[in-house]
Amino acid sequence: MKQHRLAYCKEHYIEWVIDYTVKTIERYHLFSKEEKILVAVSGGKDSLALWDILWQAGYQADGLYIGLGIDDGIHYSDRSHELSLKFAEERGLLLHTVNIPERYDETIPQMAQRDRRGHGKPCSVCGLVKRHEMNRIAVEKGYPVLATGHNLDDEVAVLLGNTLSWSMDMLIRQAPLLPAENGFARKVKPLCRFTERETAAYTILKNIEYIFDECPYAVGSKSASFKQILNQLEEEMPGKKLKFYTDFLRMKKDGYLNDKNDEKPGYYHTCPICNQPTTIEGPCAFCRLVGKAI
Amino acid sequence: MKQHRLAYCKEHYIEWVIDYTVKTIERYHLFSKEEKILVAVSGGKDSLALWDILWQAGYQADGLYIGLGIDDGIHYSDRSHELSLKFAEERGLLLHTVNIPERYDETIPQMAQRDRRGHGKPCSVCGLVKRHEMNRIAVEKGYPVLATGHNLDDEVAVLLGNTLSWSMDMLIRQAPLLPAENGFARKVKPLCRFTERETAAYTILKNIEYIFDECPYAVGSKSASFKQILNQLEEEMPGKKLKFYTDFLRMKKDGYLNDKNDEKPGYYHTCPICNQPTTIEGPCAFCRLVGKAI
Repeated sequence: MKQHRLAYCKEHYIEWVIDYTVKTIERYHLFSKEEKILVAVSGGKDSLALWDILWQAGYQADGLYIGLGIDDGIHYSDRSHELSLKFAEERGLLLHTVNIPERYDETIPQMAQRDRRGHGKPCSVCGLVKRHEMNRIAVEKGYPVLATGHNLDDEVAVLLGNTLSWSMDMLIRQAPLLPAENGFARKVKPLCRFTERETAAYTILKNIEYIFDECPYAVGSKSASFKQILNQLEEEMPGKKLKFYTDFLRMKKDGYLNDKNDEKPGYYHTCPICNQPTTIEGPCAFCRLVGKAI
Repeated sequence: MKQHRLAYCKEHYIEWVIDYTVKTIERYHLFSKEEKILVAVSGGKDSLALWDILWQAGYQADGLYIGLGIDDGIHYSDRSHELSLKFAEERGLLLHTVNIPERYDETIPQMAQRDRRGHGKPCSVCGLVKRHEMNRIAVEKGYPVLATGHNLDDEVAVLLGNTLSWSMDMLIRQAPLLPAENGFARKVKPLCRFTERETAAYTILKNIEYIFDECPYAVGSKSASFKQILNQLEEEMPGKKLKFYTDFLRMKKDGYLNDKNDEKPGYYHTCPICNQPTTIEGPCAFCRLVGKAI
């Protein structure tokens, strides 16, 4: 690991990953051992690695699997559910499951077809549904903390995209911790300082079975092209990704960015249908999407 | 020109370039027709295009050529001086010349060899010397405005570099206009909204002879690798470079960035040797470099 100037054997690598995650949790004050954490589990390497690490490190972490109904010939959703269940059973951990097509009568690709946002791609609809359902379950089941497996590559790709378009509201909110407020559970990203390669190495060394395929809809996305650019930069300047991200956090902590939404009163409203927070008045984007608002 | 959704013949292209430069000058309040402008001329396409455009558009623009003593087998400095002189003579324009090796007894590469900053590359020393000398001549000869030929590719490469390292002091100061203050002449970049290709097309269509070679020391610089990344992005999203730059300027205008130096009293000092402004106390970096301070 050039960026850390470290090289480990299997045992010490696993130990280092767990220690470094705990350091991230402590550095950014993500949560304590007394709090119940809901881990959003997709069946992929990052979310299973996160759940495994939190369990190893002695945190109270349950899982949440959201079935999206993505088939595409490879039974993407079915397989990722099976792997998530198997992981939980092997460790005696509790996995909650929400099945979107059962609960809302449509799969994500079907919802996306009706929606103008996606331009044929279901990614924005999928994000909306997942964010809504994760927060709903966390609040309903009394988890103060919602943890996702976003890694450094995910974070810097989003950061680069938001920077290239100077989306200041997004930049102001991008962080390892978003505090609970206005009906949102606290959101945390304990793996935000690990590269994709590092979390993959962890799952492989720990023999964790995960769904290897990317979501079939993720191919060719903008974030994939940002990831490629960042990999080029990392090649030329080892450690650049981590530095880009941590310097960004330090810059914000030092107070260089002004949150203009602080000035807008009533930025958040409560959706009259699902009671969740929303930035629009009347039914939220999710309730409009699933047709409850019509 | 995909980003503008425009395509022109020769005559109308030249006209468009001049009009669009005037629009940039007016939009960012760079200078008026009543003010004397000193154009920093390197003999390259951008600075000669800038001088030609300002002359065509009826601005009072004189030139300043700084001889750096860069030879490297291709007589880089001699040839660029000749081309700049020829350009000025053909148009009856006034060109000031400063010869660094004659005035300070050393060429830029020689100064760089003595300096720790450069790590063998003379680029940072060259920038320091040029900034110092441009400002010295502007102030001494009574030009309120100093214009450089920086194009959009230059600006976005610097912007990307400063963003990737979150160099907030640099981001806060990057703009088409830096106002005159603390002993600095006003600095302006009227070509900041043209790509390299657009200024090159202008010089070719106007038969302006310019030094085609890049500075031999610029090859393989960090900014070259940022330019390559930005060209990739432009390929995928035509207009992205211009939007990255103009959105950045709008974001700053909207007050999203905090200038922390505003809080530091006495940020600028006056160099006791050359009387020019400096951010360090005692002799400025330039006077230390050329040995006057020793």
